[in-house]
Amino acid sequence: MQYYQKLKTAIEQQNSLLCVGLDPVPERLPEEVLKEKNPTLSFLLQIIESTLSSVAAFKPNFAYFESLGPKGMETLAQVIEAIPQEIVVIGDAKRGDVGHSAQMYAKAVFETYQCDAVTVNPYQGFDAVAPFLDYQEKGTYILCLTSNPGANDFQIPENLYLRVAEKAMQWNTRQNCGLVVGATQAKSVEAIRHISGTMPFLIPGIGAQGGNLEKTVSSAENGTSFPFLINVSRDVLYVSSGADFGRKAGERAHEIKEQINAVRNDS
Amino acid sequence: MQYYQKLKTAIEQQNSLLCVGLDPVPERLPEEVLKEKNPTLSFLLQIIESTLSSVAAFKPNFAYFESLGPKGMETLAQVIEAIPQEIVVIGDAKRGDVGHSAQMYAKAVFETYQCDAVTVNPYQGFDAVAPFLDYQEKGTYILCLTSNPGANDFQIPENLYLRVAEKAMQWNTRQNCGLVVGATQAKSVEAIRHISGTMPFLIPGIGAQGGNLEKTVSSAENGTSFPFLINVSRDVLYVSSGADFGRKAGERAHEIKEQINAVRNDS
Repeated sequence: MQYYQKLKTAIEQQNSLLCVGLDPVPERLPEEVLKEKNPTLSFLLQIIESTLSSVAAFKPNFAYFESLGPKGMETLAQVIEAIPQEIVVIGDAKRGDVGHSAQMYAKAVFETYQCDAVTVNPYQGFDAVAPFLDYQEKGTYILCLTSNPGANDFQIPENLYLRVAEKAMQWNTRQNCGLVVGATQAKSVEAIRHISGTMPFLIPGIGAQGGNLEKTVSSAENGTSFPFLINVSRDVLYVSSGADFGRKAGERAHEIKEQINAVRNDS
Repeated sequence: MQYYQKLKTAIEQQNSLLCVGLDPVPERLPEEVLKEKNPTLSFLLQIIESTLSSVAAFKPNFAYFESLGPKGMETLAQVIEAIPQEIVVIGDAKRGDVGHSAQMYAKAVFETYQCDAVTVNPYQGFDAVAPFLDYQEKGTYILCLTSNPGANDFQIPENLYLRVAEKAMQWNTRQNCGLVVGATQAKSVEAIRHISGTMPFLIPGIGAQGGNLEKTVSSAENGTSFPFLINVSRDVLYVSSGADFGRKAGERAHEIKEQINAVRNDS
């Protein structure tokens, strides 16, 4: 199945634009799971189970698994395997290299770890992104504008982020490309949407603030039923550190899903 | 030991500016090692042993190990462990993420995999690079100008690569920062050196062409005994696919080391 189709189906069937980021921080795992053989795995399996009904996608962040060594990468593979087929899995790897090295990263994310989509870094230009886009049935989200202070160093001066959006449009010959668009400034989200047609966004950096959410949603909509995913990680994962962490995470995910749906125009 | 000091010592003791990139391509492994339990490991251990006397550094490229799954990351750890303490190990990971995720990537490269240095991507600005630079005794090479065609997409327009070099100078408060500078245009290398003072370069993209090498070397020198490393991967690794692959790789590494030294002014 093509990525856009899988994304659309997941969003429609789940009636949700929520993506839950899987960032397992060792120090923040609930005591409840510390007695398990693999606390990280046990934690994430419970998070997946309890938030499943509220999400269109999960986004495991490779950094957290990589820091745990080869065993961490095994955990990553097990986590991804536990996610039901109909839910989108975005490998948040932010990889960026050229030529054969980029091919190897694409192989890792799409074949070895079986993700449906990936995040990639555009700094090295087309040949850093092409090996990912070559996987026709997989999705590739290109970093465009991020929500951190450092976005002011290179992305915003000279409107680099808009040039990235323009290039992404040119590169999207297989209809499998998306953009990572931080939710800090609705005006910038609007400017990117103006360039990028119906390209789906992956939007991190949103808090629980309804106002911010409302502006972002209206700037990011694209007239399709799969305009974007809004990613939330810690706000869901670490709501409770008690034995009720799973139930609390599930409730929070449901709440955020409803908040997003309340301000959608296309639903 | 501080990274610049370790780099300087390795370059002086080995009398070499050569870095051999460890990019194990499964399809190119010599038949000789295919009978081993772990062909990739066996291949790289022999490459390391036979090129050791000619190099100041090895640069394992994470992409190749990552594509082999958790076992590949185990191999990466074993390869790094086999490199003698006095030789520099650069983790070519080109990581780029922000905040806590960047901390996790820095932890992975510097602690879990014990590299002396890393390559990072500057697209997300200071907070993507800072967690690496925070490791005072480790080296962080920031992608500045790469040698692929895609450099023309974003790095070269608006002189983004020169702005990256300027920012790197500002960020280098702990004297542990370097730049990745492709060897395609000596004029650009010269412009970066003009900005970057004595900052060490990591230079990929050089062929066996003496002319190109000579111009690059004279543009990249910085008046210290540790001006740069020149990285060569396949030109060394895959000289021979026969049983003599180790010896041939060793001879090639020695030859390139001598070619570089012949055009140095500071030796």
